Amino acid sequence: MKTATQSWIASANDASCDFPLQNLPYGVFRHRDETHIGIAIGDLILDLHACAESGLFSSLTVEARDACRADRLNPLMSLGPAAWTSLRHRVTALLADDSPEQSSIEPNLVPMREAVMQLPAHIGDYTDFYASIHHATRIGQLFRPESPLLPNYKHLPIGYHGRSSSIVVSGESIRRPSGQIKSNQAASPIFGPTHALDYELEVGIFVGPGNLLGHSIPIAEAEQHVFGLCLLNDWSARDIQSWEYQPLGPFLAKNFATTISPWIVTLEALAPYRAAAPARPDQDPAPLPYLSPPSTACHGMDITLEVYLSSSEMRQTGHEPVRMSRANMRDLYWTVPQLLAHHTCNGCNLRPGDLIGTGTISGPETGSEGCMLEMKSNPSPITLPTGEARTFLEDGDQVVFRAYAQSSGLPRIGFGECRGTIAS
Amino acid sequence: MKTATQSWIASANDASCDFPLQNLPYGVFRHRDETHIGIAIGDLILDLHACAESGLFSSLTVEARDACRADRLNPLMSLGPAAWTSLRHRVTALLADDSPEQSSIEPNLVPMREAVMQLPAHIGDYTDFYASIHHATRIGQLFRPESPLLPNYKHLPIGYHGRSSSIVVSGESIRRPSGQIKSNQAASPIFGPTHALDYELEVGIFVGPGNLLGHSIPIAEAEQHVFGLCLLNDWSARDIQSWEYQPLGPFLAKNFATTISPWIVTLEALAPYRAAAPARPDQDPAPLPYLSPPSTACHGMDITLEVYLSSSEMRQTGHEPVRMSRANMRDLYWTVPQLLAHHTCNGCNLRPGDLIGTGTISGPETGSEGCMLEMKSNPSPITLPTGEARTFLEDGDQVVFRAYAQSSGLPRIGFGECRGTIAS
Repeated sequence: MKTATQSWIASANDASCDFPLQNLPYGVFRHRDETHIGIAIGDLILDLHACAESGLFSSLTVEARDACRADRLNPLMSLGPAAWTSLRHRVTALLADDSPEQSSIEPNLVPMREAVMQLPAHIGDYTDFYASIHHATRIGQLFRPESPLLPNYKHLPIGYHGRSSSIVVSGESIRRPSGQIKSNQAASPIFGPTHALDYELEVGIFVGPGNLLGHSIPIAEAEQHVFGLCLLNDWSARDIQSWEYQPLGPFLAKNFATTISPWIVTLEALAPYRAAAPARPDQDPAPLPYLSPPSTACHGMDITLEVYLSSSEMRQTGHEPVRMSRANMRDLYWTVPQLLAHHTCNGCNLRPGDLIGTGTISGPETGSEGCMLEMKSNPSPITLPTGEARTFLEDGDQVVFRAYAQSSGLPRIGFGECRGTIAS
Repeated sequence: MKTATQSWIASANDASCDFPLQNLPYGVFRHRDETHIGIAIGDLILDLHACAESGLFSSLTVEARDACRADRLNPLMSLGPAAWTSLRHRVTALLADDSPEQSSIEPNLVPMREAVMQLPAHIGDYTDFYASIHHATRIGQLFRPESPLLPNYKHLPIGYHGRSSSIVVSGESIRRPSGQIKSNQAASPIFGPTHALDYELEVGIFVGPGNLLGHSIPIAEAEQHVFGLCLLNDWSARDIQSWEYQPLGPFLAKNFATTISPWIVTLEALAPYRAAAPARPDQDPAPLPYLSPPSTACHGMDITLEVYLSSSEMRQTGHEPVRMSRANMRDLYWTVPQLLAHHTCNGCNLRPGDLIGTGTISGPETGSEGCMLEMKSNPSPITLPTGEARTFLEDGDQVVFRAYAQSSGLPRIGFGECRGTIAS
């Protein structure tokens, strides 16, 4: 069965490849001292700057061509869905196996292994939500066994502002933060390195055009303001967090680093996995009208998310990373359009390139916990193949997130990886 | 008694003027379709771009001259105290009454009434603290009469991240936000305009050079990273806040708008009011070493802060604004260097132009409450001269913050005003 159009770039047609012709995620890469926007295809990057310069985008608008020449994705993000679709159609035609322009394109392809990925956008504001009811319930059970979910949880998407300055791209090492830590037994806190360093498995949402201050994004229009999705690791220091977070929320426990994957996967690429997604958990009580999507909408996202861990010793002794979690984005209680509609219902403005995290994504079953803190209720502690035990991350540990949408007869839409190693 | 050097600009020598020769605050203004950096002097603005262009700054470094030609203060902020001092000395010499260059400078002066002030910097991240123990205690009494202060309060400066995108400059009108509101009696929340719109009187701290990710700013060096101070109104919707804030802190209750005053007053201008400041409240328990300033340091800031309110009816009937509060920054529990040292102790990076709010500044006595919520414990409700009653802000209300440092024999160092009107 011919399942889909193939590319003349052979590596894109491998069934295990994250970046087939149907994906075309955006990123920013550095190569030969220049920083350009690119699209991942197989194991190559299509240099959009070079395409614009060499006349391959003459059918696009001036604004779109200029946006392709920028060194961050913000201008392209600001243009909105019509421009994104036109660009996607053009790139699809250039890379499809029946493209007559193969020889013009080849000079504009860069091997991924020769490029260094950068942050894809200037991120003006970074917001983090708490949209997984399974995560919220497990965390709540640790603190309030009798009533894990707070009364507001099912009425509104809980969110808070994070730190933009410390967002780094996949591959950058993470320094273990120090801070005030107070054990239950101690009368006073001490200052020192965290002993409870954790990851949080999240999806990041990059904002497209956004809204003006004082205006709101109606839920029915919210997806027009989503440029695409990436993976996000909201590194967390649990001991710092538990001492500092009342009454104004997490601060130094989170703002020392956030890692994102470099490739932004568009909603157009994920479209087949929207219709196919099982319904998200029923929302009961029914959300207020501003959070109620049109009745025909299918906002589920059938995206499998995985966390892998390897210790320094495991890597030295040739062990494969251990899978810590497999979860699915469709299990989120609050959907992406609900997050955007809620964020702007008070007139707060979102700008192109703003980043919104879903919050830790966990499933209901054991093995789908999106962070190590949730595993504390598991019957047995984590033991690595080397015999090392883990409650939280140790120096040298490497955490890799992967994600993909896949179903029978359709090409795999992958996210690449979101990698971070704790400096030792 | 000759109290200080005077300026050849007469309006700067008026005893009630906020901007004498000894102040020289920085701002960004728009005039004749151009956006330039300026310094306030009397009722005029010295155009630093024009000064740089006309050769008046030839004694400064190339970097300093380039920074003066920018349309935001970030480049100047990044240069650090030595550059700031050189520029201040040069501008002081140009504007002092013995300046030989009066005729060269006059073309570079713009009347304030002809200029439109802008946000002074690109604000990458905005952090808000909770540094007033009097504010924290009064707010705590409303929720937890038996133990108003949480156990962590005297050990670390509580802070959280705010929204950068919705920071506006003095004068912009404020739209009443809508959001989810749940009364104690109701079973479920409703969506609608806030009925509890409040101001919060704060001082904003603009970051200078800042630090790299993974590094910290030692408390002894913290003031070298303070470019200057402004006034900040952290508008708050109390009914939205009380429903949404658990467990991750304030979000939509705050991020719809934050107003700052346009002029940034430097620590050099405030130096006489540091030595003169009474000791801040003793910190007991003694702070941990990373929060302990050198023993000889005097970090108090003797700055008087005032809040004025006028209703639409008051302004129409010629009533003067009512003073709602008079407080002093020296009453903060946590000092500015402590806020910076804490913020970076985990390696979080601060960038030039980042903004840090102190949190609501309140004094211990009645009449020094920095927000209306604190006044709920007062014996009588607020009654305006028109007979109108106020618990929170109504449409058309105008809130103006003013601040100044002043003592006998020294010129007044004023902050100008931070003004916002609730749209009706």
